[in-house]
Amino acid sequence: MKSPSIKIKKIRTKNISKRARNIEISSIKEMSMLADIIKEKGGSRVISFGQGIPYFDTPDHIKQGIIDSLKQPDTKAYTLMPGINELRDLVGKDLENSRGIKKIQPRKQIMITVGCQEAIACALSAVIDEGDEVILFTPGFPSHIAQAIHFGGKPKFVSLDEANDWAIDFSKLEKATTKKTKAILLSNPSNPTGKVLTVKEAKTLAAFAKKHDLIVISDETYDFLTYNGTPYFSLASLHGLEDRIILCGSFSKKYSITGYRVGYAFAEEGIISQMMKVHDALAICAPTISQKAVITALKGPQRSVADLVQGLTDNRERMCARLDRLDNIFSYKKPMGAYYILVKYDLPGYDSRQLAEKILDETHLVVIPGEAFGPAGEGHLRFSFGCTPQDIDEGFDRLEKWSQSL
Amino acid sequence: MKSPSIKIKKIRTKNISKRARNIEISSIKEMSMLADIIKEKGGSRVISFGQGIPYFDTPDHIKQGIIDSLKQPDTKAYTLMPGINELRDLVGKDLENSRGIKKIQPRKQIMITVGCQEAIACALSAVIDEGDEVILFTPGFPSHIAQAIHFGGKPKFVSLDEANDWAIDFSKLEKATTKKTKAILLSNPSNPTGKVLTVKEAKTLAAFAKKHDLIVISDETYDFLTYNGTPYFSLASLHGLEDRIILCGSFSKKYSITGYRVGYAFAEEGIISQMMKVHDALAICAPTISQKAVITALKGPQRSVADLVQGLTDNRERMCARLDRLDNIFSYKKPMGAYYILVKYDLPGYDSRQLAEKILDETHLVVIPGEAFGPAGEGHLRFSFGCTPQDIDEGFDRLEKWSQSL
Repeated sequence: MKSPSIKIKKIRTKNISKRARNIEISSIKEMSMLADIIKEKGGSRVISFGQGIPYFDTPDHIKQGIIDSLKQPDTKAYTLMPGINELRDLVGKDLENSRGIKKIQPRKQIMITVGCQEAIACALSAVIDEGDEVILFTPGFPSHIAQAIHFGGKPKFVSLDEANDWAIDFSKLEKATTKKTKAILLSNPSNPTGKVLTVKEAKTLAAFAKKHDLIVISDETYDFLTYNGTPYFSLASLHGLEDRIILCGSFSKKYSITGYRVGYAFAEEGIISQMMKVHDALAICAPTISQKAVITALKGPQRSVADLVQGLTDNRERMCARLDRLDNIFSYKKPMGAYYILVKYDLPGYDSRQLAEKILDETHLVVIPGEAFGPAGEGHLRFSFGCTPQDIDEGFDRLEKWSQSL
Repeated sequence: MKSPSIKIKKIRTKNISKRARNIEISSIKEMSMLADIIKEKGGSRVISFGQGIPYFDTPDHIKQGIIDSLKQPDTKAYTLMPGINELRDLVGKDLENSRGIKKIQPRKQIMITVGCQEAIACALSAVIDEGDEVILFTPGFPSHIAQAIHFGGKPKFVSLDEANDWAIDFSKLEKATTKKTKAILLSNPSNPTGKVLTVKEAKTLAAFAKKHDLIVISDETYDFLTYNGTPYFSLASLHGLEDRIILCGSFSKKYSITGYRVGYAFAEEGIISQMMKVHDALAICAPTISQKAVITALKGPQRSVADLVQGLTDNRERMCARLDRLDNIFSYKKPMGAYYILVKYDLPGYDSRQLAEKILDETHLVVIPGEAFGPAGEGHLRFSFGCTPQDIDEGFDRLEKWSQSL
């Protein structure tokens, strides 16, 4: 491995909390930082199948909304801590329309956050005490693991059934659940597997949560993005789960504004009121100019979303076709949602971290090591097809050439 | 009291963490929310001496920089997790120039955060374990109290000497410190007292921290804002404190961008590397468009800062003059920095919360109850003079009229 390592040498442990010592920077961000070091050194252009950033630009009408908002005197200032009221109302309407949830009270049940990441941080902080167990499906989103540990939670991993399109194995779930289990945290559609919960799975999961008195934290960042007409079904739509579901969402991917940092949480008033206290302590409020950008996005034409979904649908086919040409080393389950493929590799002798660093070093292509996604992630690499079609082609041209040198 | 109460009735305790149950929304945000309810009801315009938002607009060249950044393809996307490298470098230069700190390594020692609030959250999370004690001066910033408790800390309050211009009483500090004490968290210049540490106090505090092996978290949001030539002296300038100081700063007030949510933390590499892991779990990165706005601000002309300081210097005189006319009920120490006055009131029978709500209800003027600032805050109200001179005049016109009805 010639890769530069960003593993910090002078990592300190004296005066440092157990909480901080116990967590790691997500490999997704670490690979981005490694790529940045390579970029600064020069050489062939770095291509990224790494961090999930859609290749579409922010739509022009949203940019124009930002320019217009600069003329409004309140754009410079903090918003109310739970967010701009108009935005909370719009998110409420959007949830009613997209999920068939009835009679949402946005001023009591919705708070605007610094991306979905902060929404989940607030949810876990409000629910988890030191030593409580949190159910995490694996492969699952790396930040969920770090976040659960950060707030004192003990992750209990439940492996998904890869052979069966990453289905939930409810017997494993039952086995992993104890009296100390406090919450289930999952993403749906799933990052990194692209799995979308079926109605049956959702209902079984809801009944399970109810039976064991668990809070369900549902990360629905990719709600708008399923393929081949796969129906999207939100856990928040289910009757009987209202008092234990915390839905966390984002506008980052849908409107190509990952850097704007706006997300939201929706839950019953009693839970949101507790989460708001945490939100105040962590961030005061989400960025005003970004909240206004999302108001423009939600009130404006949705054509850009349809275009984005079409572009990513095409990218999915393109990437799968290229993966099929490398079936001597790679196999995969075609994702039903989101824009990631968790690729299984057949290259004995490499763990996923070594392999991702080798690929970055030798081809200047960023992929994410599977180890990041919990115990069932090892042996895989995550490829994002959020990048341009040209980058998919060039990335795979490099991979093919590279694979011949193995 | 006819004030509407935002105390949430359906506050939930079942399934809720101790951490969340133990904290409160800062009264500063709560008063803003109360004011918003009154605004929506109509009636006379609400004037705010509440949340600290400078009345100057964001300078035009910063707005133009935002408009220009919308043409750059990377504005839509996440930045690297610790922030844009150029911004980290600029902050490093700024700290070297403003504080005489030598040889800062920005790519190792500085991280960009979601305002100073998130910087302090990351600092506390990286340092405090469940049950550790945190020294807080009182009157002190309310969010510091909530943040310390949120991360499992036990606040140990040390009262400042009001009669002596809010000086630190080192014998009280000594008494409050035990083997469980892990950190000192303070703001300098202080919100809410306007106290600025003298060189002697800073040196004594540094020696104290060293002797007791304490981390010092210094919130220096108002570093640019002292009055009558009061010299500003940062704890981060002191030799011997390098390995235990975490400096948290902000551009919110200096460039009138409180809503943009950009701050930073500076510390030795070992501490920053731990804080970065927390930052990743809480927010991923600070908003890109806002980070770019700060790059424009730091590279551009600083004339707007001088104008702001002059405007607030005038406001300070204006507010003090009006307070002097109400010396039958109000007394105060003239602040040396920041833009708050912690006003002592002589109105038996009212606690500060009741009084602040009464004033809001009867005059539509927002002030912050002293109870928010720890045990030594009761009996006071915090008045911000960040608002327009016209609002200071009208607010005090209302207060004078109101005081006659008492």
